[in-house]
Amino acid sequence: MKHTTPSDIERTSMEIISAELEARGIDPPPENAPIVRRVIHATADFDYARSLTFTPCAVERFTALLKTGIPIVTDTNMAKAGISSAALSRWGNEVFCFMSDPETARAAADGKTTRASVSMQLAARRFPNALFVIGNAPTALMALSALAAQGYRPAGIVGVPVGFVNVVESKEETLKLCQSLEIPGIFAMGRKGGSTVAAAICNALLYTASDMLDPSRRGWH
Amino acid sequence: MKHTTPSDIERTSMEIISAELEARGIDPPPENAPIVRRVIHATADFDYARSLTFTPCAVERFTALLKTGIPIVTDTNMAKAGISSAALSRWGNEVFCFMSDPETARAAADGKTTRASVSMQLAARRFPNALFVIGNAPTALMALSALAAQGYRPAGIVGVPVGFVNVVESKEETLKLCQSLEIPGIFAMGRKGGSTVAAAICNALLYTASDMLDPSRRGWH
Repeated sequence: MKHTTPSDIERTSMEIISAELEARGIDPPPENAPIVRRVIHATADFDYARSLTFTPCAVERFTALLKTGIPIVTDTNMAKAGISSAALSRWGNEVFCFMSDPETARAAADGKTTRASVSMQLAARRFPNALFVIGNAPTALMALSALAAQGYRPAGIVGVPVGFVNVVESKEETLKLCQSLEIPGIFAMGRKGGSTVAAAICNALLYTASDMLDPSRRGWH
Repeated sequence: MKHTTPSDIERTSMEIISAELEARGIDPPPENAPIVRRVIHATADFDYARSLTFTPCAVERFTALLKTGIPIVTDTNMAKAGISSAALSRWGNEVFCFMSDPETARAAADGKTTRASVSMQLAARRFPNALFVIGNAPTALMALSALAAQGYRPAGIVGVPVGFVNVVESKEETLKLCQSLEIPGIFAMGRKGGSTVAAAICNALLYTASDMLDPSRRGWH
């Protein structure tokens, strides 16, 4: 194992991923390819090349929104921690997670709702316009659907919860919601997903919006 | 999708995972099963049932160490954010990540080493005894190997970096190191891993050490 810089490693990794996608006969549309590659880079799991689903012009619409400095809301502090500070600083985006907010704990204390659900309601009250990046809780996606039925409009939804109960259905329903309301959405269909996948998609969108897809432009050290 | 509490969802998920492991003819040793199940719960990826590798009595040794209140060092703030505060509080363990430490940035500024590597050296200087939970950087594992060659002894290593360059080799080498020095180790062999996997293993060990494997004992709300 010879010493290489992180940006060399990332470049080599992306070349390996591109070659293996080609060998598998998978050829994502050019605008989606950086997102697909970054998720595979974060998971080493090529299943995402088939499960990632984009609403029309999703990447173009997400990047245009990011360039307005729109706030980003996550459903876990872990996804929040995984989003690149350097990339966020380019357009002044801030990331918020209300899972540890005292109001969230209070409202979920009776057990009739989940903290993830309450944290989405808090975010919707606080931000008339925000991108939602959901990597863990299907109940967060379900809360966004309920808010949409009441007239709230998330600016965009990255929906990649992981798991075995209500996860597949929550992603299918929220994808349909995005399609019918013309909200840009990116979803990992099926059971797989997670906070690393959510952060990877968000980072790929930020890098695309900031011309930082080339790792040497990100000032690794 | 009916409303269920997070602890109901977790219990149902674990039942589904156990049933699907059985259907695949995979039967992990009882002491390792809670760790295997929790990683699958965090990823929905059954590949981990085969790739997770444990040194002899690893779970017993890790849980005994956790009960002493030993500090935990991660290679990402993301893995740190994913480790359960409730579980940490049981034995007073604290989690440290030195990736954003100013000294790490300074020492890695010349590009001759990585921040992950420097952050391990900092941790080794600070803690004569610590558990290392590595979910991202193969260079962090390589730094631990180099420190071991100089006489430093990590108390235990969870080694689950993800990726395409040096990852497979770094895990194989560190597993061998653990075997020869009798350091308890848990590794995800192959390319797959990540911060969610690292946090899931650490949480499963903490839950085992704290009799919190039953989610209703963790006071979800």
